[in-house]
Amino acid sequence: MLVSQPFVFCVWSVADLYLGVELVYTLGVVSLSDPLPGYSDKVRDLLEKLGASIGCRIRLYLAPNTIVEGLLMPKHEFSASNTIVIKLDNGYNIGVGIESIKSIEVVECRELPRATVATIPFRHGLPRTRILGCGGTIASKVEYETGAVRPAMSPAELIELIPELAELTNIEVEVLFNILSEDMTPRHWVAIANAVHKAIEQGVDGVVITHGTDTMSYTAAALAFALQKLPTTIALVGAQRSSDRPSTDAALNLLAAVITTLNAPFGEVVVVMHGTPADTAALVHRGVKVRKMHSSRRDAFQSINDKPLALIDLVNRSLKVLNERYIPRAPRDELQFRPVFDERVALVKAYPGFQSEIIDMLVDRGFHGIVIEGTGLGHIGSHVIPSIKRAVEEGVAVVMTTQTLFGRVNMNVYTTGRKLIEVGVIPGEDMLPEVAYVKLSWVLAQTRDLEKVREMMLTNYVNEINPVHTPDLYPRWLEVPTV
Amino acid sequence: MLVSQPFVFCVWSVADLYLGVELVYTLGVVSLSDPLPGYSDKVRDLLEKLGASIGCRIRLYLAPNTIVEGLLMPKHEFSASNTIVIKLDNGYNIGVGIESIKSIEVVECRELPRATVATIPFRHGLPRTRILGCGGTIASKVEYETGAVRPAMSPAELIELIPELAELTNIEVEVLFNILSEDMTPRHWVAIANAVHKAIEQGVDGVVITHGTDTMSYTAAALAFALQKLPTTIALVGAQRSSDRPSTDAALNLLAAVITTLNAPFGEVVVVMHGTPADTAALVHRGVKVRKMHSSRRDAFQSINDKPLALIDLVNRSLKVLNERYIPRAPRDELQFRPVFDERVALVKAYPGFQSEIIDMLVDRGFHGIVIEGTGLGHIGSHVIPSIKRAVEEGVAVVMTTQTLFGRVNMNVYTTGRKLIEVGVIPGEDMLPEVAYVKLSWVLAQTRDLEKVREMMLTNYVNEINPVHTPDLYPRWLEVPTV
Repeated sequence: MLVSQPFVFCVWSVADLYLGVELVYTLGVVSLSDPLPGYSDKVRDLLEKLGASIGCRIRLYLAPNTIVEGLLMPKHEFSASNTIVIKLDNGYNIGVGIESIKSIEVVECRELPRATVATIPFRHGLPRTRILGCGGTIASKVEYETGAVRPAMSPAELIELIPELAELTNIEVEVLFNILSEDMTPRHWVAIANAVHKAIEQGVDGVVITHGTDTMSYTAAALAFALQKLPTTIALVGAQRSSDRPSTDAALNLLAAVITTLNAPFGEVVVVMHGTPADTAALVHRGVKVRKMHSSRRDAFQSINDKPLALIDLVNRSLKVLNERYIPRAPRDELQFRPVFDERVALVKAYPGFQSEIIDMLVDRGFHGIVIEGTGLGHIGSHVIPSIKRAVEEGVAVVMTTQTLFGRVNMNVYTTGRKLIEVGVIPGEDMLPEVAYVKLSWVLAQTRDLEKVREMMLTNYVNEINPVHTPDLYPRWLEVPTV
Repeated sequence: MLVSQPFVFCVWSVADLYLGVELVYTLGVVSLSDPLPGYSDKVRDLLEKLGASIGCRIRLYLAPNTIVEGLLMPKHEFSASNTIVIKLDNGYNIGVGIESIKSIEVVECRELPRATVATIPFRHGLPRTRILGCGGTIASKVEYETGAVRPAMSPAELIELIPELAELTNIEVEVLFNILSEDMTPRHWVAIANAVHKAIEQGVDGVVITHGTDTMSYTAAALAFALQKLPTTIALVGAQRSSDRPSTDAALNLLAAVITTLNAPFGEVVVVMHGTPADTAALVHRGVKVRKMHSSRRDAFQSINDKPLALIDLVNRSLKVLNERYIPRAPRDELQFRPVFDERVALVKAYPGFQSEIIDMLVDRGFHGIVIEGTGLGHIGSHVIPSIKRAVEEGVAVVMTTQTLFGRVNMNVYTTGRKLIEVGVIPGEDMLPEVAYVKLSWVLAQTRDLEKVREMMLTNYVNEINPVHTPDLYPRWLEVPTV
């Protein structure tokens, strides 16, 4: 565990005032006042009698030769009710049924850091970085440090986690919400966009958003459309491995994100994540050209149809631009702020046997836009064309993208593509289906005029369309053996 | 143009009898009897007067210094009605409006090879390969050779295209249909499965299926489930570039597919496509672990969560096994044939703001199964869980996969995953969303008992689930510069 020696800890409260910035800690998951969250009945009685609370080191005697020792952890609602959850010293959690426990010994109960926060002196000469907390695995580092599931993070906890941060910048933390990544909605995008806008107006030098990885690229795209002509880099960051695993990437990614906002020349929304086989570097991806491509790997985030914008050297804390086609930082007064999203947009996948009634249903239910994740160059079974034609006639915007992800739609090559163009489908160029979905939601919140929608969808606002693809954008699957 | 000298041409008919095999040429796109397909009115009158037909070399005088010469091509329904389409000698097609033409000269009208077929003598000692034609770009090679858009291919035309084939095997052709790849449905899967089954019963040594690339991997998965314990390799093959482009991969891929069926030890359905930077090799992918990953590149097909099965050396016409985890060929009498698919299955993509009413609508409309392409480890917004719960309660099978494509769902890590498991969602392991869709369709055609559906979805029939992922399965995106 990293320890930050130079800082003094003191009690922090739910509403903190720090550097004149209002910090709102919205705590939703676990009550901080309960020393035994998740435990009830018999097990709670037992632990209370022993004076054990979350974070205490306890020893369970199961059999003469079987002793389990570790930190008492909160019990998850899904584990059996008569179970005690222990974090072993190897980082793994186990649940032990109390019927198998002969006796319990409380080894040590140290004061929990979760009730403390550093008052970090503002250091003149250093920039200001606003960290916006939106949940996700990256926030669970704190959980490990305290032994508790807890949604918020304070500046002190971040500095404790990553002492290097204090050398680079003044950290300000605003916890917006702590939700599971898959529970993000367009309304959360608006809330985050507002918080970024406020931070920029307050003159911060960089904004870092901690976010669950599942839907991080959707949020990145949403912010990229909502906030244009940015005076600073807005970096989203997450972790693929929670910090109770030895391979956690939380600290590395967060440090890389801060380095990015302090050094990048980009006036863009980016995603900063572990992206190389080495632990000494991270990649900066354009927010509208990135995708989570693996369910669990640390280098899950990859740029699609575009080069990563930059490489972060964590040893020298420096940034190397990899992609010269970027939007430079704009003067602060040029910021364009349009945080609006239409929630009546669907992203629909094409497949053999696709039932055209799905399109009909969306139209009947009053959807305003449909993004199709088509096949190949942008196709869907020709039996669906009448339903799409009707959708467009009823004022529903229909955009075509490709489920190949790599490459560009080209609806002029084959008959089906031409017919789709003819009935009014808007080609999505080389935009990822997910980005086209976010963009259509953003466009439809501004206009429902289909000609204007078409014009906006084909306008390249923030490099969401890459006009030139080079062969090196396609990854290499295999070292092909010599034949 | 490749010419096959040793063969004698003679007239062929729509119903041909070859080696005792009934060949059915189902021609749907262009009538062979019309010498000027697609042309009407003024232009047709003009061409008829000149005695020009498709394939004639004609010269258009546009201006004193502008003469266009090439082969007369069929006119596509989408080109303007007063246009003449010419294939230039560089392989490109142009359309010339007749108002800009001063005069037309017919240079040459040779007998069209499309009205001929080789009677290829059966060569004893060589194996028999059945080629099943199902359309797609790969069939358009014939179009180039004859100058006509035409769906069928005869053994002679294939031999003319790829003379090497005659040295390797006796070719038998059955054209099943010629439809656009995106128009494939589960009913076509059944027709193809039946044709494969018939070919196996007739004792052929290999089956090659020419198919459009857009939905080839769906058909491959469908055949893999419908035909198990195969006595031979079933190879699907397509082309990413039609043969009127210099970079066509049609001949290379088809030759590689035939080499595969003749040499592979696999009793599996595979996809054989250009897969390396070199033009001298192709890759053999497991049909249930492959995906079209680029809209236009020749090496668009890539194995996901599995290694390719083999590498085909086109110079030495040999096969090198790359993946030892394969299903060997089975004795002919062990073939398991279950060509059934339920058409009331939907593949639904999760995204922030996903409208749970989409699930409700599918249930209300009597769908039998829903495959969710979830986020990350297999998630969807928790607000959707009540709708999923109701779906399962009403007997709808719900399967979870991941839109990251790479990696495996693991629904025991986070709350949402656990809740989804609790309401009865079936985890899709590391199956591609598209493969899970095909598999669920196949399973639901056999049982609607949800416990049996779960058991079958989790049964690893044809290596559609890979229990062990090695790091080399994830492609490399970027040569990371040294920092």
